[in-house]
Amino acid sequence: MQRKRKLGRGVAIVGAGMSKFGMFRDRDTKDLFLEAFNEAMASVDKGMDPNDIDAIYFGNFSNDFFVHQAHWGPIISDLIGNVPKASTRTEGACASGALALREGVFAIASGFYDIVLAGGAEQLSKLPTEKVTEGLALATSPYEGKAGFTFPGVFGATASAYFKKYGANREHLMNVTIKSHNNAPLNPKAQFPQSISDVMKDKVQRAIDKGKPVPVWKDEREFLRDPLVNPVVAWPMHLFDCSPISDGGSCVIMVAEELARNFTDAPLHVIGLGQGSGSGLHAKEDLASFEATKYAAREAYELSGLRPDDVQVCEVHDCFSIAEIVHLEDLGFFAPGQGYKAVEEGLTQRDGPKPINTSGGLKCKGHPIGATGTAQIYEIWKQLRGEAGERQVPIDSLRIGAAHNLGGTGGTCTFTILERRG
Amino acid sequence: MQRKRKLGRGVAIVGAGMSKFGMFRDRDTKDLFLEAFNEAMASVDKGMDPNDIDAIYFGNFSNDFFVHQAHWGPIISDLIGNVPKASTRTEGACASGALALREGVFAIASGFYDIVLAGGAEQLSKLPTEKVTEGLALATSPYEGKAGFTFPGVFGATASAYFKKYGANREHLMNVTIKSHNNAPLNPKAQFPQSISDVMKDKVQRAIDKGKPVPVWKDEREFLRDPLVNPVVAWPMHLFDCSPISDGGSCVIMVAEELARNFTDAPLHVIGLGQGSGSGLHAKEDLASFEATKYAAREAYELSGLRPDDVQVCEVHDCFSIAEIVHLEDLGFFAPGQGYKAVEEGLTQRDGPKPINTSGGLKCKGHPIGATGTAQIYEIWKQLRGEAGERQVPIDSLRIGAAHNLGGTGGTCTFTILERRG
Repeated sequence: MQRKRKLGRGVAIVGAGMSKFGMFRDRDTKDLFLEAFNEAMASVDKGMDPNDIDAIYFGNFSNDFFVHQAHWGPIISDLIGNVPKASTRTEGACASGALALREGVFAIASGFYDIVLAGGAEQLSKLPTEKVTEGLALATSPYEGKAGFTFPGVFGATASAYFKKYGANREHLMNVTIKSHNNAPLNPKAQFPQSISDVMKDKVQRAIDKGKPVPVWKDEREFLRDPLVNPVVAWPMHLFDCSPISDGGSCVIMVAEELARNFTDAPLHVIGLGQGSGSGLHAKEDLASFEATKYAAREAYELSGLRPDDVQVCEVHDCFSIAEIVHLEDLGFFAPGQGYKAVEEGLTQRDGPKPINTSGGLKCKGHPIGATGTAQIYEIWKQLRGEAGERQVPIDSLRIGAAHNLGGTGGTCTFTILERRG
Repeated sequence: MQRKRKLGRGVAIVGAGMSKFGMFRDRDTKDLFLEAFNEAMASVDKGMDPNDIDAIYFGNFSNDFFVHQAHWGPIISDLIGNVPKASTRTEGACASGALALREGVFAIASGFYDIVLAGGAEQLSKLPTEKVTEGLALATSPYEGKAGFTFPGVFGATASAYFKKYGANREHLMNVTIKSHNNAPLNPKAQFPQSISDVMKDKVQRAIDKGKPVPVWKDEREFLRDPLVNPVVAWPMHLFDCSPISDGGSCVIMVAEELARNFTDAPLHVIGLGQGSGSGLHAKEDLASFEATKYAAREAYELSGLRPDDVQVCEVHDCFSIAEIVHLEDLGFFAPGQGYKAVEEGLTQRDGPKPINTSGGLKCKGHPIGATGTAQIYEIWKQLRGEAGERQVPIDSLRIGAAHNLGGTGGTCTFTILERRG
């Protein structure tokens, strides 16, 4: 980094919304984003006239591929009645939404705009699963995709490398999955709002209903070890290590810091902002780490003047269970090789000292690619404002939250730190 | 507009480059962009260490569709050795490149970065023409594309509406085409560096070489009226009214204003910046105008404190001949209904009072979608610095230039005004 990053003008979030996440073949991108937008507008404590929105940033990975329609900036502008004002699409694979947020921050910090809507949406479920996998693989590096890699394979390699380097094993990945499934039932927007025990009970009940042999698993771990219910996808990634195919939308409303109190007495100030890029697997010195995440984290910590320990609640990009563990280390929350132990010891649970993915994470909340970045911010918005309901983390003086978004095989990573003031 | 736009920190362009434009089936996006990048670095008068580039913005419409590879931010970062620093793709159909420039301006103006590379590239020629047309139609509004519209149809409708409203006809469109073809031979990067007379001579020579009947056209207009050489594409758009299928890359290097003199004594300052959005044909009150262009122009003039008459040389988005005429009016250069007369009177020729598309325009220079925005800026860079060679406009005290980029059917339009200082 050439010099210390700084922003000439502060930026605050004064509203946030997200649609229910899931597979909605009877809905479309506009419909899903509008659900998020309506909630965001309603969430502005002192109200906001939608006509006061100066511009839009919209994250979308590839509706080009998934629904055969590109150029979403003006579609979203038209959708919310913002024509002829500017609307720009950003793309950074699964980090597309965080890029929208970031460009919105820059646009306000530059002094050009005062009020920006930043969000994203994606619609994956229109295509059959094998086509979705093909579409997602457009986000791998040209070396990976051409070599036949798809995402489960890339993160399978990440896990194998991590296991070898640090002595972890598949049982440790299960801790991530079980935790996410424990958080998700408390999130009314989650695609899979069930604990692993609930999933087990469902399977038993279905067998009984169909008059089939009733399966017996002694606990959640034994269930996750059963190849009939949790088959391998790309070793050691099994079905329950992978985030699902999802549709959804999300957004936040940002304003110049000096205007924030016109809209709410509890704004979230964007105090840390970082983004990095990565070349791909072939260029990595350490397969068990993402250089782009480390760079983004360094930049965001530097801007905020904070350290990893200062982050009280965080959403990280758990596209696969192993990814969550690696991010915990790359973000500096735990030392290299200690992430899996921290999860095992319960440190990242909702009531632990470093709650991670209280939303249920991508695994259970769902992962509609372009919507994920600002959906992570939505969770931090809810938590820092004490509005997370049953999943509210039990931390007094909760003030600092963060979100980490990863695109491709670590090609684009972002880290955003938010502070509640008021 | 809520309040007067402003930028907290000035931004200047200190380098620019573009690849040769054309159909290059044996080259790829990286190769083309690198050609542009190398020229841009070499163009920095006092030199620049590429390691000092803080971040990249890369405009690309849909290499997802055209070459089955998305997520170009990190690919470009890797290409120029900028990993792990940030790299973000912007997309706004044919205006994708101008959006990259704009986000680069905001990122510097915000104070976050000092030096940003902004550019774009696109590679269309790998696919057969009918697939390219299908891909480009992804940028129409959902209403247009689903109704079967492709771009020649949309601009055919624009022309028909313009003709009806103002009494122009096809002969007036030919003036645009002839002018572009007169400028292009002076541009060594142009895809079609031939005047219409040259094209005629070529056809005659080819007939002679093949022993076929030798065609006789008395002048350029008669040639353009001949349906055998200039067939209708979508009435009244004929082949020579349409920009071609192109591959290419382009970029500019931008720095914070206060640093500009470290790199050159003749920087171009970004003094006007505007962007607007549009809903599509179905929502237009006037088919012979683009609301998004008018909005973008208003914003850019306001920021710069200039009026249309102050712009001394301009590149406008002539994806089709009629588009150039309409933009001349929407940008305020000529009154509504007067654009076609201005072209007819030669006012927009290279040696006229308002030189337009001295590069040859999209029609002759080529139109590799994501590269077009910063390629327009490249032309203005060359002209304002007096480096445009044979096509240099003969204006004393040339100081103010501008570029207008249009995406989709006017869904995204930008206008950028540059001032040479020094």
